Amino acid sequence: MSYDYRLVVACPDQVGIVARVSTFIAAHSGSIIEASQHSDLTSQRFFMRYEVRFEQPRSQAQLNEAFQPIAESFDMEWRWQETAQKRRVAIMVSRQSHCLVDLLYRWSTDELNCEIACVIANHEDLRSLVEWHGLEYHCVPVTSEGREAAFMHIDQLIESHNVDTIILARYMQILPPWFCARYQGQVINIHHSFLPSFAGARPYHQAFERGVKLIGATCHYVTDELDAGPIIEQDIQRVTHCHTADDLVRLGRDVEKSVLARGVRWHLQDRILIQGNKTVVFA
Amino acid sequence: MSYDYRLVVACPDQVGIVARVSTFIAAHSGSIIEASQHSDLTSQRFFMRYEVRFEQPRSQAQLNEAFQPIAESFDMEWRWQETAQKRRVAIMVSRQSHCLVDLLYRWSTDELNCEIACVIANHEDLRSLVEWHGLEYHCVPVTSEGREAAFMHIDQLIESHNVDTIILARYMQILPPWFCARYQGQVINIHHSFLPSFAGARPYHQAFERGVKLIGATCHYVTDELDAGPIIEQDIQRVTHCHTADDLVRLGRDVEKSVLARGVRWHLQDRILIQGNKTVVFA
Amino acid sequence: MSYDYRLVVACPDQVGIVARVSTFIAAHSGSIIEASQHSDLTSQRFFMRYEVRFEQPRSQAQLNEAFQPIAESFDMEWRWQETAQKRRVAIMVSRQSHCLVDLLYRWSTDELNCEIACVIANHEDLRSLVEWHGLEYHCVPVTSEGREAAFMHIDQLIESHNVDTIILARYMQILPPWFCARYQGQVINIHHSFLPSFAGARPYHQAFERGVKLIGATCHYVTDELDAGPIIEQDIQRVTHCHTADDLVRLGRDVEKSVLARGVRWHLQDRILIQGNKTVVFA
Amino acid sequence: MSYDYRLVVACPDQVGIVARVSTFIAAHSGSIIEASQHSDLTSQRFFMRYEVRFEQPRSQAQLNEAFQPIAESFDMEWRWQETAQKRRVAIMVSRQSHCLVDLLYRWSTDELNCEIACVIANHEDLRSLVEWHGLEYHCVPVTSEGREAAFMHIDQLIESHNVDTIILARYMQILPPWFCARYQGQVINIHHSFLPSFAGARPYHQAFERGVKLIGATCHYVTDELDAGPIIEQDIQRVTHCHTADDLVRLGRDVEKSVLARGVRWHLQDRILIQGNKTVVFA
Repeated sequence: MSYDYRLVVACPDQVGIVARVSTFIAAHSGSIIEASQHSDLTSQRFFMRYEVRFEQPRSQAQLNEAFQPIAESFDMEWRWQETAQKRRVAIMVSRQSHCLVDLLYRWSTDELNCEIACVIANHEDLRSLVEWHGLEYHCVPVTSEGREAAFMHIDQLIESHNVDTIILARYMQILPPWFCARYQGQVINIHHSFLPSFAGARPYHQAFERGVKLIGATCHYVTDELDAGPIIEQDIQRVTHCHTADDLVRLGRDVEKSVLARGVRWHLQDRILIQGNKTVVFA
Repeated sequence: MSYDYRLVVACPDQVGIVARVSTFIAAHSGSIIEASQHSDLTSQRFFMRYEVRFEQPRSQAQLNEAFQPIAESFDMEWRWQETAQKRRVAIMVSRQSHCLVDLLYRWSTDELNCEIACVIANHEDLRSLVEWHGLEYHCVPVTSEGREAAFMHIDQLIESHNVDTIILARYMQILPPWFCARYQGQVINIHHSFLPSFAGARPYHQAFERGVKLIGATCHYVTDELDAGPIIEQDIQRVTHCHTADDLVRLGRDVEKSVLARGVRWHLQDRILIQGNKTVVFA
Repeated sequence: MSYDYRLVVACPDQVGIVARVSTFIAAHSGSIIEASQHSDLTSQRFFMRYEVRFEQPRSQAQLNEAFQPIAESFDMEWRWQETAQKRRVAIMVSRQSHCLVDLLYRWSTDELNCEIACVIANHEDLRSLVEWHGLEYHCVPVTSEGREAAFMHIDQLIESHNVDTIILARYMQILPPWFCARYQGQVINIHHSFLPSFAGARPYHQAFERGVKLIGATCHYVTDELDAGPIIEQDIQRVTHCHTADDLVRLGRDVEKSVLARGVRWHLQDRILIQGNKTVVFA
Repeated sequence: MSYDYRLVVACPDQVGIVARVSTFIAAHSGSIIEASQHSDLTSQRFFMRYEVRFEQPRSQAQLNEAFQPIAESFDMEWRWQETAQKRRVAIMVSRQSHCLVDLLYRWSTDELNCEIACVIANHEDLRSLVEWHGLEYHCVPVTSEGREAAFMHIDQLIESHNVDTIILARYMQILPPWFCARYQGQVINIHHSFLPSFAGARPYHQAFERGVKLIGATCHYVTDELDAGPIIEQDIQRVTHCHTADDLVRLGRDVEKSVLARGVRWHLQDRILIQGNKTVVFA
């Protein structure tokens, strides 16, 4: 049994928040293992994330109840999350395997602190890879006329598997608005460009046409506006006139998978707080 | 007297170009010190840049005359450029000094192989800095009604100073189309974003609003479409939710100056060949 | 008058530190503008840095007196530092100007929140540059027999100018042990290699001989063991087989100056806490 | 059938090499698709790599015979290598899978233009992963007394599988000198530090102790001096005081695999020429 918790808080900024919260923790014999705070000057909002170790057993229910009065007095959005409790993840893929292979490797070596509830694909290509890892693979083809039915099926899979986080690991379908709304802040996508440049289709070919000298990838939360959700992480790769569009695709794969992996890891550790269309990332 | 030359060639790709050119050089007792080549598969064009050392004196006129038949047979755009002959540069600035300070330092330590013919500004702020370096400073204010006259004045300054390359070192004015056309491929700008993202005004504030995790700078040739000319070089700097728009401005300065300096150095060494709206950079 | 302060603390880790400190701040109507904390698992030491804004005037003496009981109960090393009070810096140089030019630019644009008390050199080369900036320049030649006298002279200059921080901006002399001991934690050096590789003389030539593919620079506090003090910041630059040792020197200058500038900025903002031979950097 | 070849040449530098070689190629109706050259000023040696496309069928034997006189007249080390002919690779591993997983992914998607003849391990851990890919797995335990016999066995495996290139993908054993000598220039290792820092055992723990702010990885050819062979490629990852030695191990894995993959790809494409203890890399 574990007595390690994460406390995540967002609230209007004012004097005394840290004092009240840290006094609460000390009063419950908790040590603050890691502390991150941010005051946003524009919105006057305060964000914090603490990793807390208690010397005696505490349940999430106990902590919630005891903390409630503080939370109310500061008008907090907040959560005590038991560190040992693993998030349940669904990975959605299409035909390309690079992000999936990378995530499965990191999952298998405990770099990603999660359970993979299932992999959902719109093609059969990656079934044997997934099943070799001992994981469920659900193929839900998406056709233009069967699109709505497909996503209702996917929704049921997610529901029935108790999934908490959905990772689009180069899943090439656009999610319907109702799906985006339902899983707001829970769907992480990797886009293969340095957003906001080259949103939409075939970003590497757009980049090639424009003659940029760096290509990139962007991990972001999905909203119903395509490739416009809150950005979690980005990175780039240098390219030259020698590289063809195909080379950009190849080189970009490495950036995509590392950017996605970082974003997913932070999400699973409650290190990301969404603020409007931006993110606070306590990396 | 120097016998070092650069040969720069662009022509339709076909068998035998390298053989003819290198045989020519060998026949004139030239050593190829550095060689760069590129075959563009899309346009079927061939690009090359050779640094050649001749053991005996050769004048540019002699080389041109002797090389003419080869150039014609391959339909080449070409140039023999004496390495020792320094380009004449005009730097255009507004009020911000970071790029100018950086360029002047590199010029003073011979990192940039050029003569600075003059600095042209639309404000007086940087005069003493420039004059301390022993350089001419011309202040040509640009007002909305006096805009055309101002650029005609600037044009005369450039003409009378025998300027070959114009560097916009955070010069905040948009050049008139006739000026862009006249100095096509000779005007280098630094834009303070990772183009094509955030073209136009206040890119750092645009970047801040979008919540990107990397900011950038782009060095490009100026065309009459704003911030859309051939890209020479780009680089980025990581930022976080902690950084204000002002922090982005501060951090961006370092990227701007290093990206501009690299682009300028390559240009002055004839390492950049423009192809349509892209560049071949033999860095 | 300013009511902004930085509080920097290092002490044995235990439950309740944050609670006591933040309650103290709240009790004095202080807002925590920025907070950084670190628990070192090996040494069981706790480090914190708060930026605090008080709504009413507070003097450093008042804060010190009021905070004293807390500090004693947790066995703290601590300091309240008024943010508006600028540190007094001496920059030491030899003949190379790149780091100096860079620091002077940043100082002149308020990127470095400090006063430059004087520049101390062992050559006359950079006098006019420094004096153009309106700063004192002291040339103290260091000869093998006059070495001890030279450093006693330098020591007097530092003392008489009330200097708090000494920056070795490519000062090519080794400081005597008594000098290192006297200014422990106050002398920042830039070494032109990626330490611990290539300590000592001519690191770029060592790097060239070894055939490394990246060169680097290291900013560190000076101790009496050459190039072995606590590392503050490092960065690298990619190189290839095309680059000569002279190219490495040229390319390295850019890394040196940016690494040094970051280290100096953090030091001047009390963002660096020394722990044994390592640093905690709240960047 | 393919008519694409790579020509790789190293010889004393002199006037006329490019002319002779390119004239030879043109005379055989060959197009130079990609050209890389380097003149080493210290050793006065010349290096070149051409990718050549012939319009008509050419066998390697024909090319060799026809090229022989040129090669002799310039005292060349040289090779015509048919591009379509895949190198045969043995990957050697121990227990850690990250580099192996990465290489197998790249091999399976044709990023690495090679055949994997077999995987040789000193433990059984990675057998099922390898066999799932349809590849041979040979476990050859290495004990202190059975060491010599083990490497003789390995030598036989390499010989019988017609292996051309050996990749040490975090193989934790030191190769005996006779083995290094026998496969000189054919064994690629990944070392988990930024060499020459932290050669030998437990480099991440050495890096942690020293308090560096960047960790790295180095891909190099193996020689009988440990971690001292010609460096092919290096890269780094930023770390902070927050990272434990275990974090360095985790973060380092990503650098290790990408650095190794780049080095292997270049080797398999004949882009690396060894010169003394350094490499010319025509990336």
